[in-house]
Amino acid sequence: MNEAIFVVNAGSSSIKFKLYRVVGRDVALVLGGALDGIGTRPRLLAKDDAGTVLVERTFTPETIAKAPEAQHAISDWVLPHLDGFDLIGVGHRVVHGGPHYTHPEIVNDEVLRTLESFIPLAPLHQLTNLDPIRTIRERRPDLPQVACFDTAFHRSHPEICDRFALPDALYRDGVRRYGFHGLSYEYVSGALHELAPELARGRVVICHLGSGASACGLKDGASQDATMSFTALDGLPMGTRCGALDPGVVLHLIEQKGMSAAEVGHMLYHDSGLKGLSGLSSDMRELLASEAPAAALAVEYFALHVAQAVARLAVTLGGLDALVFTAGIGERSPEIRARICARLGLLGVALDAAANAANATWIDADGPGPHVLVIPTDEERMIALATLALLRPA
Amino acid sequence: MNEAIFVVNAGSSSIKFKLYRVVGRDVALVLGGALDGIGTRPRLLAKDDAGTVLVERTFTPETIAKAPEAQHAISDWVLPHLDGFDLIGVGHRVVHGGPHYTHPEIVNDEVLRTLESFIPLAPLHQLTNLDPIRTIRERRPDLPQVACFDTAFHRSHPEICDRFALPDALYRDGVRRYGFHGLSYEYVSGALHELAPELARGRVVICHLGSGASACGLKDGASQDATMSFTALDGLPMGTRCGALDPGVVLHLIEQKGMSAAEVGHMLYHDSGLKGLSGLSSDMRELLASEAPAAALAVEYFALHVAQAVARLAVTLGGLDALVFTAGIGERSPEIRARICARLGLLGVALDAAANAANATWIDADGPGPHVLVIPTDEERMIALATLALLRPA
Repeated sequence: MNEAIFVVNAGSSSIKFKLYRVVGRDVALVLGGALDGIGTRPRLLAKDDAGTVLVERTFTPETIAKAPEAQHAISDWVLPHLDGFDLIGVGHRVVHGGPHYTHPEIVNDEVLRTLESFIPLAPLHQLTNLDPIRTIRERRPDLPQVACFDTAFHRSHPEICDRFALPDALYRDGVRRYGFHGLSYEYVSGALHELAPELARGRVVICHLGSGASACGLKDGASQDATMSFTALDGLPMGTRCGALDPGVVLHLIEQKGMSAAEVGHMLYHDSGLKGLSGLSSDMRELLASEAPAAALAVEYFALHVAQAVARLAVTLGGLDALVFTAGIGERSPEIRARICARLGLLGVALDAAANAANATWIDADGPGPHVLVIPTDEERMIALATLALLRPA
Repeated sequence: MNEAIFVVNAGSSSIKFKLYRVVGRDVALVLGGALDGIGTRPRLLAKDDAGTVLVERTFTPETIAKAPEAQHAISDWVLPHLDGFDLIGVGHRVVHGGPHYTHPEIVNDEVLRTLESFIPLAPLHQLTNLDPIRTIRERRPDLPQVACFDTAFHRSHPEICDRFALPDALYRDGVRRYGFHGLSYEYVSGALHELAPELARGRVVICHLGSGASACGLKDGASQDATMSFTALDGLPMGTRCGALDPGVVLHLIEQKGMSAAEVGHMLYHDSGLKGLSGLSSDMRELLASEAPAAALAVEYFALHVAQAVARLAVTLGGLDALVFTAGIGERSPEIRARICARLGLLGVALDAAANAANATWIDADGPGPHVLVIPTDEERMIALATLALLRPA
């Protein structure tokens, strides 16, 4: 019987899942899908490894009002598809591994308690991530579950890149630059190592540009610094998140404008970024297609801030050997990559226009400047591989 | 009779003042001093242009508990020194000129009302700055007073550098990247133009590194971007201020740790930065002299963040022709300049060690890289010159 690993990536309004067959030390996708629109327009969609739709089903908002109902709906659909597989474990994306988890962990009572203690560090996401772990533990206490952290990959930061300029008591209390998107960076860094091991040993900046966006500076495959820090608000402007913001703005809105911290938080997470700047859309494709001046401003703002972040990280690294683009915008928008790179001539960055337009893997022009690459990310595959490595150590 | 200009730079715990003689289109220092330690250990110290102490007097905290008493004490001492001078006006440093003031303004009723409307943008500083203007208006309504703004020099920023990625309604309501230290940047930029007009027309980053610290990117002498933004908290780590900070940290401290916005603000302004990181001192000289690991961390943290900011601004400018250091640390710490520049090799920055050690004006090594300079700033002289230019237009 084929061994298999199930991967769960639970967000606030959607749960993504994938089933992988174990193939030696590797994994192969069997099927994947998502139940999104929880509480609004719930829809379950799943496809097999060839992209064939296996199910597409909508629900009333009342039927799937919250995460538990969504988990049940996924279970009901998935369980028959597990026939013929020996499920060796479930891998979960968990946003917060706190200051100390540097690798994935098999979830036991103690680990679960520790992960619950991180809820104040990421109130919404951490609860959402732990929820399916608890549900599955109740139903299948025998089934190993593995928590894979978005923060773990960044625990290699030198202390200087792990701190804010705040009193030490806050650092000890967990106010640190955790960085996020770590599963994506680990995957892309591994893929770069497959492609060009020498380059992967150098000074590399990876730009993960999706509706969430951040950049990470790596040396010899280890994260040194990142733009996201204590929360997923900091760093690059995103679809709806503000990115770097003067902390004085938060204080001003509360003290002078009478907003509550919750209202400010909601605005910074949901109504800012490209959406706030453009007043039109959080979707880069729509902004690029728009002729509105505010859309053009938002696009150029994004490109400028990504370029600034690349330079900032290159300073941390002491130079730049390779610049890698990944995630939705990073993988599929030649226009945005071109605008970012056009602002990085001072670091020697130069694109090959045709390769860039084709979304090729290597897109830099011949010359002495840094290599520029496009490498698709796959966080769920990273979770499956990490889960396999932990459950079947070599 | 010699025409003269009196300059007032009023802070929360000290009032600095200078008297300048008008010499054609220029000004010459007559005397300068400060009353500092208001409410704690008040002390009036003044010197003439040769550095000879004219007065050094201490007061009980009860005698000079607040700004008005300090103003009186300064007046009492200064007035006899004005004999023989025809005072043509008083120039004031005013931290906030709001979104529209791009130049100094002669204060009339309307201007004063407008400046009062900016109090919510900088509650502590703006009140403190306006206070002496009001006092002098009451006593000498005939005497022209000129408000010189720390924000005015940055109004040349392109829109993309004037915005956060926030909803447009906030931008229209004044939540903008004002930048500060504008009087210093204007002075230093002018001094660079005297020294090397060609270079001043290029792409220049000025690092104003004092107990407050920021950096500014200029093209052809006009500010394009700066690290301080809506408030004087943002950007570089400072003596006691945090510099750039994830806005999520502010929300966390309020929502999860039960701090009030006022408590968070106090900590970010007064207990963070070098003081918070080191746990020892906000004074760079003390940190450089210390052997404590936390002092070394704070020093290196400062250097790294300044270098990152220079790179970020160089991206905005599309390159870097000159890097200029100014203010206390920038003018007098070869060690800090060396550490910053050592991290900027990727931009071609290279120092001449001997010139740097000597605090020379030109401190870059021969080669194709950007020029590096040390240019002393003089905000009060800038205020005097701006006041003269406005009151005696050519």
